[in-house]
Amino acid sequence: MSRQSNRTTDSKKMNSELFTLTYGALVTQLCKDYENDEEVNKQLDKMGYNIGVRLIEDFLARSSVGRCQDFRETADVIAKVAFKMYLGITPSVTNWSPAGDEFSLILESNPLVDFVELPDNHSSLVYSNLLCGVLRGALEMVQMAVDVKFAQDSLRGDNVTEIRMKFIKRIEENLPAGDE
Amino acid sequence: MSRQSNRTTDSKKMNSELFTLTYGALVTQLCKDYENDEEVNKQLDKMGYNIGVRLIEDFLARSSVGRCQDFRETADVIAKVAFKMYLGITPSVTNWSPAGDEFSLILESNPLVDFVELPDNHSSLVYSNLLCGVLRGALEMVQMAVDVKFAQDSLRGDNVTEIRMKFIKRIEENLPAGDE
Repeated sequence: MSRQSNRTTDSKKMNSELFTLTYGALVTQLCKDYENDEEVNKQLDKMGYNIGVRLIEDFLARSSVGRCQDFRETADVIAKVAFKMYLGITPSVTNWSPAGDEFSLILESNPLVDFVELPDNHSSLVYSNLLCGVLRGALEMVQMAVDVKFAQDSLRGDNVTEIRMKFIKRIEENLPAGDE
Repeated sequence: MSRQSNRTTDSKKMNSELFTLTYGALVTQLCKDYENDEEVNKQLDKMGYNIGVRLIEDFLARSSVGRCQDFRETADVIAKVAFKMYLGITPSVTNWSPAGDEFSLILESNPLVDFVELPDNHSSLVYSNLLCGVLRGALEMVQMAVDVKFAQDSLRGDNVTEIRMKFIKRIEENLPAGDE
């Protein structure tokens, strides 16, 4: 049973609130399951990674985006196409490193944290860390190893939410031995 | 820190795939946490309930729907306004009981199960059971006690997905003592 084939024609636009609350239930469950915030952050990143490696296929099919020429183009596609498509927001791309291998996504608002207040005993929780994993996993599938982390978080009192992305390397496509 | 006030003007439309995959991560986590499918079903219903009691406020603010005159009107609002708003689909309302206290929502497609195949060892899992809890919780907040369950599930080989809803009773509003 595969639904793959119907997917492109079968897009559903939805408001973000049910997603937001469901994500909250997931984070709450992980906070019950793991001993400390660092473990929860790690799990969220791992889950996000697994989501990203699957979501990229949907993204490429739906967006008709081709291979990016450089990291600047990648940044624009992530902000203007991917975030818009899956979260309904368009972060700004900014704070480029001089070498052009690092930038920030600035989220004026973050749909994942609507309705959310961080309890005092979870001061190290990176609530939206799933997003870092999603970005890391999706980019890995298009041969880019990238480091992704939250640099600022409105949930923790910062004015904006900032995701910092650092290009590490281009991943060689491993062709199966004997294949060509 | 409350975001309540911005919510109505701040609606974000998103494609459903990130939600679908995140929901999958939640179900997978619960399958790890609980011993059997029945427990997972129960947890999903409970989480859904907690989501429903919060989502109803957003729904009422966003939809401008007033108090429903009868269960038939409630059914229409759920199918045509609520499902459309939060899942991007419009189930059909059908199979009314002669007394008018039971109906079915038929989902031609269910965004929660895109990408999903149920493993053999989870034959009792009601994968989308969160939805039943959401409906139950949301309706309880507008003074309706309702029984909600899956009668058919495309994930388990049925042709469609059918959610059966049964009106139990109108809940009296408990006014605080001395209030009027």
